[in-house]
Amino acid sequence: MGDVLAPSFEGDFTFATEAPFPVAGGALQPVTQRYALYGELGARRDNVVLVCHALSGSARIADWWPELIGPGRPLDTARFCVLGINVLGSCYGSTGPRSLNPQTNRPYGGDFPTVRIADMVRAQARLLDHLEVDQLHAVVGGSIGGMQALSWAVQFPDRVPRCLAIGAAPLNAMALALSHLQRVAIRSDPKWRQGEYPPDDPPAAGLALARGLAMCSYKSAQLFQERFGRRPNRSSERPAERLADRFDVGGYLDHQGNGFVGRFDANSYLIVSKAQDTFDFGEPEEERIALGRIAGQVTTIGIASDWLFPPEDVRDLTARMRAAGARADYFELPSTHGHDGFLADMDRLAPLLAAALC
Amino acid sequence: MGDVLAPSFEGDFTFATEAPFPVAGGALQPVTQRYALYGELGARRDNVVLVCHALSGSARIADWWPELIGPGRPLDTARFCVLGINVLGSCYGSTGPRSLNPQTNRPYGGDFPTVRIADMVRAQARLLDHLEVDQLHAVVGGSIGGMQALSWAVQFPDRVPRCLAIGAAPLNAMALALSHLQRVAIRSDPKWRQGEYPPDDPPAAGLALARGLAMCSYKSAQLFQERFGRRPNRSSERPAERLADRFDVGGYLDHQGNGFVGRFDANSYLIVSKAQDTFDFGEPEEERIALGRIAGQVTTIGIASDWLFPPEDVRDLTARMRAAGARADYFELPSTHGHDGFLADMDRLAPLLAAALC
Repeated sequence: MGDVLAPSFEGDFTFATEAPFPVAGGALQPVTQRYALYGELGARRDNVVLVCHALSGSARIADWWPELIGPGRPLDTARFCVLGINVLGSCYGSTGPRSLNPQTNRPYGGDFPTVRIADMVRAQARLLDHLEVDQLHAVVGGSIGGMQALSWAVQFPDRVPRCLAIGAAPLNAMALALSHLQRVAIRSDPKWRQGEYPPDDPPAAGLALARGLAMCSYKSAQLFQERFGRRPNRSSERPAERLADRFDVGGYLDHQGNGFVGRFDANSYLIVSKAQDTFDFGEPEEERIALGRIAGQVTTIGIASDWLFPPEDVRDLTARMRAAGARADYFELPSTHGHDGFLADMDRLAPLLAAALC
Repeated sequence: MGDVLAPSFEGDFTFATEAPFPVAGGALQPVTQRYALYGELGARRDNVVLVCHALSGSARIADWWPELIGPGRPLDTARFCVLGINVLGSCYGSTGPRSLNPQTNRPYGGDFPTVRIADMVRAQARLLDHLEVDQLHAVVGGSIGGMQALSWAVQFPDRVPRCLAIGAAPLNAMALALSHLQRVAIRSDPKWRQGEYPPDDPPAAGLALARGLAMCSYKSAQLFQERFGRRPNRSSERPAERLADRFDVGGYLDHQGNGFVGRFDANSYLIVSKAQDTFDFGEPEEERIALGRIAGQVTTIGIASDWLFPPEDVRDLTARMRAAGARADYFELPSTHGHDGFLADMDRLAPLLAAALC
């Protein structure tokens, strides 16, 4: 084999089951999951690395971790079959609020049931059954992708010999607060209409505001200060003289927010953000029992400048895993990018990811 | 005199001038300022302590610093005449968006010109002229009250022998970002109507959301975690099962936001929040010249857990004052309350305030 190989296989697929699938807020029927494969599934079907995506991500891992996937890279497509699955509730091909509700023959909209991370993972396990993959090589993810990875290790210990969770822990109260306000922004936009908005007239202002707030929580104060400081917005705005005129960081947030409206569904945002908030393993004793089920090697990574999922919270969760008898190692990713460090600092993440997949 | 004296004098007053008063975004005419006095103005009129209020405060200092004002307390009404002045643009008696615009004979609403902290302070100086107070004993304030105190020391050095600014510095990019989103929340509420909403139908949802976000920035993650953790909201809400059900911190923020709508005007919020954002002394060389004008003793206080006005920023500003030749001392207030520490930890603030007034 040469030094660089094109992925031997790559494509998008859809897997649907008709059986009712219970989720936290009700049940879904049918359940469709969009997934993407990179690299070849080995004859023994033991080379699958499941890579779980974050809130607004998709099954297309190469879209958001481009430097980490490919031949010779940590997610080595010459060795692994790398699998991405769009989460339940999202809007990138899996069953979500835009899907038809068979009971009404209209899209679920605001009637889509709440889903927990554990539900997403149980659905993913069905997909693995369908692919006849008994045991993964590893499960990997950042942010709510990391939550999924941890939920995999707890719910399906025999299928997860290796688990890497980056910037993931049950949300603290400040993070719950910011997340709540993002949903309030969407739900108090009159165009949300209890979730029954037409596709061409979504609650754009509310979703853009939610995204702007999320961006603040994904970045660090240091990064914002270095990048924007107190500069007025480009195009000669005069923030001191006109109410509508902005500082540079305001222009950036508006731009990010407005761009997001074109690529994400507001109801999906509500559902997936809620799943993020409700991720935990229960009260201390419940959690201890859950974490004690872990059989594989867990690696956790806290991101140094992350104030949404503070590294201390990731480290503390790791300590609780060890106290419960699990094998778990904590590393800190040096990054000034805040929570987004797992996307922005791929070069620093690469050796940690490679080591976790050994 | 006995150990405890009732304030010898206390009351609310209004001072109006007819002359046009230029502000950053235009001019105001007339200018009215509501003020409150506690304690007696001495015959030499040299015992006035001006206490500047924060974003949603009022001239009634005793309403928001109750433990710090009164006979024998740091703001000793047996010794000082303590003066509070409602800032321009606010809604507690001074000229603001609810005031009549003489050009249209209707309330200013969305046409109220932007105001900078320096404008507020120049208006306050006119009020002192009217009261025939040439020199203050001191000027004191927290948050944008601290910005006013600093602006006083720079603009009117001869009138300010002592200045205490708590949790105040030019906002960094993260704070500008959060502040911007608060204004977006108000301005994208359709009920804002470009600021021309009727008094009985304000943009309540937008203002409540803005306040909720502000509350996050005023508190610390530690405080939220201790107070709310991951508990569901009272009244048996089930956040994992229903989209509308909340964690405790969400219920708290909604409550704070909704309560705020009844006591504050949305257009005033836009104007005063904008004044906060645009507070600075210009580019480094401009700032050096401005800070070099300071003649009195400046005391600055950073609040340990403040992430809106990080203590490092207050400390750095103090260092720049000293580098510019000003007498300035920095102290840190130990508090877990975040920015609100200057309101919540009055007992710890008291000795620092008393010392600054000596």
